[in-house]
Amino acid sequence: MKVRNPRTGLYDYEIEPLSAEALVEKANQMRNAQKEWFKAGIDFRISTLQKWKNEVNNLKNELIEALCIDTGRKWETVLEVDLVASSIDRWCAISKDFFAESPRKTSSIPFLDIEQALVPYSLVGVISPWNFPLLLSLIDTIPALLAGSAVLVKPSEVAPRFIKVLQQSINEVPELSGILNYLEGAAETGAKLCEITDLICFTGSTTTGRKVYQAACDNFIPVFLELGGKDAVIVTQTADIDRATSAVLWGSVANAGQSCLSIERVYVHQSIFLPFVSKLVGKANQLNLAFPERDSGQIGPIISDKQVAIINDHLQDAIEKGASLKAGSSFCEEMKGGFYCRPTVLTNITHEMKVMSEETFGPIMPIMPFKEIQEAINLANDSKYGLSGAVFAGTEEEALSIAKQLKCGAISINDAALTAVMHEGEKNSFKLSGIGGTRMGPSAIKRFMKQKAYLINTSQVKDPWWFS
Amino acid sequence: MKVRNPRTGLYDYEIEPLSAEALVEKANQMRNAQKEWFKAGIDFRISTLQKWKNEVNNLKNELIEALCIDTGRKWETVLEVDLVASSIDRWCAISKDFFAESPRKTSSIPFLDIEQALVPYSLVGVISPWNFPLLLSLIDTIPALLAGSAVLVKPSEVAPRFIKVLQQSINEVPELSGILNYLEGAAETGAKLCEITDLICFTGSTTTGRKVYQAACDNFIPVFLELGGKDAVIVTQTADIDRATSAVLWGSVANAGQSCLSIERVYVHQSIFLPFVSKLVGKANQLNLAFPERDSGQIGPIISDKQVAIINDHLQDAIEKGASLKAGSSFCEEMKGGFYCRPTVLTNITHEMKVMSEETFGPIMPIMPFKEIQEAINLANDSKYGLSGAVFAGTEEEALSIAKQLKCGAISINDAALTAVMHEGEKNSFKLSGIGGTRMGPSAIKRFMKQKAYLINTSQVKDPWWFS
Repeated sequence: MKVRNPRTGLYDYEIEPLSAEALVEKANQMRNAQKEWFKAGIDFRISTLQKWKNEVNNLKNELIEALCIDTGRKWETVLEVDLVASSIDRWCAISKDFFAESPRKTSSIPFLDIEQALVPYSLVGVISPWNFPLLLSLIDTIPALLAGSAVLVKPSEVAPRFIKVLQQSINEVPELSGILNYLEGAAETGAKLCEITDLICFTGSTTTGRKVYQAACDNFIPVFLELGGKDAVIVTQTADIDRATSAVLWGSVANAGQSCLSIERVYVHQSIFLPFVSKLVGKANQLNLAFPERDSGQIGPIISDKQVAIINDHLQDAIEKGASLKAGSSFCEEMKGGFYCRPTVLTNITHEMKVMSEETFGPIMPIMPFKEIQEAINLANDSKYGLSGAVFAGTEEEALSIAKQLKCGAISINDAALTAVMHEGEKNSFKLSGIGGTRMGPSAIKRFMKQKAYLINTSQVKDPWWFS
Repeated sequence: MKVRNPRTGLYDYEIEPLSAEALVEKANQMRNAQKEWFKAGIDFRISTLQKWKNEVNNLKNELIEALCIDTGRKWETVLEVDLVASSIDRWCAISKDFFAESPRKTSSIPFLDIEQALVPYSLVGVISPWNFPLLLSLIDTIPALLAGSAVLVKPSEVAPRFIKVLQQSINEVPELSGILNYLEGAAETGAKLCEITDLICFTGSTTTGRKVYQAACDNFIPVFLELGGKDAVIVTQTADIDRATSAVLWGSVANAGQSCLSIERVYVHQSIFLPFVSKLVGKANQLNLAFPERDSGQIGPIISDKQVAIINDHLQDAIEKGASLKAGSSFCEEMKGGFYCRPTVLTNITHEMKVMSEETFGPIMPIMPFKEIQEAINLANDSKYGLSGAVFAGTEEEALSIAKQLKCGAISINDAALTAVMHEGEKNSFKLSGIGGTRMGPSAIKRFMKQKAYLINTSQVKDPWWFS
């Protein structure tokens, strides 16, 4: 299967998905190896992941280069690779506490005691997207490995060049290579993964997420879905316009807007609407496309050509329905085979436009003014998605009181897209943005484990309470 | 829709399911009322449930009488009704701790703080079975109410007479009647429930549970399933035979075996096989059918006539395949329109018999001898189910070492079916016995809530880290 290069448009790479039989065989081997992996204990699993961290670091340059070709971008890729080490360290610390011995408990009945244990799902499947190919392939994988599961990962076929490099780092750690494998493949491999694993984690679009939920249902396994978003930001009359415009720009255009948690809707109080738009446009126009070189600017190419079509469609639809283009362009520009989308500011917006209802996944900032704060809250909540959001106000209290009324899982206060950098907050996705437990904190490890309870009758009486 | 009486076989009761339109209307009203229910706070919800507890107590005799007709049995019904009060009290105590204020946290980044909040799913649907009609309709309902959700409950159409009485107790508490409703209805009402609620809890058969999972998938909502079991007990050479036979009998024939967690497979070390069988048969034969009166004996009628057909089929299949009947009967006896199954002991058993692979849901004890303990563990784990189990051994240590190898959620040690009486242990179902979080402990309340994280930038610097 041929893969497109986002900077050249050339199909210059090939992946070779395993056959269904080979996948079943691999799953069986991994299930077997998983028993020892769990039995070896958390200290062994932590030290193994630490070894892997070193191997990833040894291949850092190769990994960055592969991911740069996969995604066409530079600075986000360096950040992504840098985050692997801190991510492994963070999960190792959390799991150390998580696996602390839980003491035997008494119950409300005098001669009955309880011991609790946790056992991992044997084989976890992870299906990850192309926007942060490395980071989002690891976000569920690392806690699952620490839980004691074996993990089969299938990254997106849109950005698969890093797989071989990462697999090489895995192969350098023999303790790991039996219970962690990265697979090349597209939809067919993903579907098979749902059949041969005991639990599925999926990060990606809501459309595909619903298919994964269906496959999990058919296979009667649990599922964790982190899907699309249409994150809103509310900027009140009292907000600091300088701060808000800088953060909204960052939250919207970082990674060319190709983040589920990027800001895609902007609601600004009418009293500061004009200066807000003016400052945002000024800042947006200072950013440059990462062309002709990867480090020529901040805005890399749109990675997937399917996404280019969606962005163009949303822009065209908005403009046809009366939107005004204040910065950027009304379509993605093709340059030497790559498609680039400039930071784009739109006004004269309504909720009838796709750019306010469907996930755009581009650096587009449609801005609507509001009069009363309740109107802004209603507009922000008028979405089938509920991933995250942001509020800017003069005081933290004012911002929090608004945030408490937003129907989404994480809300940045006087900042934007903080879920990308803060890993301590536990959150769930609302509405079509996902299903299942939090990916942060100890609960994220527990997702991969089943609880067992040993209910112990300690009485020496022969028939303490049965039929007399 | 006409309903059968399990003691007479007469269709002497009628239920009137709401129309789809009326259900939607009710759901909308409840969603509206739920906002206030959550806002009113945990102390208000606790005091409302305490009021309800008193109203249930005021209608105790009516409730017992309705449930006795629903199920045909007596002592299990009294127990069931008695448990309502302690169940409400237990959940109120747990939720009091659960909703204790969580403090603001700092993060690993100096100027970023986190506040966490929990918000309930607006409308929870509960679909409950006929074997413990009251208790199992409340097991998810009470924690969901305390979480702050509104709850629509649809008990089984096989045992629906208690619904009117319970709804009467709800109507006596105006604070509750807007956010808790019991529905009469069968499969159609259950299917509609999956369409109009935000989260579904189902207790019942694996076959129906899979349909509920499918409906939840179609509606893109989370699901909690507690399904069938085929619980095994292992009795080692060192076990106390007196104790083990009494407990196995209790665990198998209480409620005429109509419990998901009843013992349905018995593995006994060959050295004690004959005395074990002999003692068990002796004890089984001392029990009487609850006929002609409800309190004539311990073993009430089989509640559902469909289940009668399944039990008869399993018994016939076993005997055709060579099983020996040591106590009881090879079929359910019909007496005055009701069907009764005597405590039945079978030997000469193989795993090819349905009585060892499918859920029987009757007071049947098929016993197989084993030689090595590993053989017993393999046999116990050779099941598509993984609900619970039991181990008897001379020491607790020996029993626990076996229990740790069993693939199921709760294991009674030197006792049987303790999940029925111990509520402190958190457990998950394995394999086809269920999906979703534990129903016990604080985690059970959290199932009905989504976590929100407020990620707060407290820095006074205007652009702390965005594009420079």
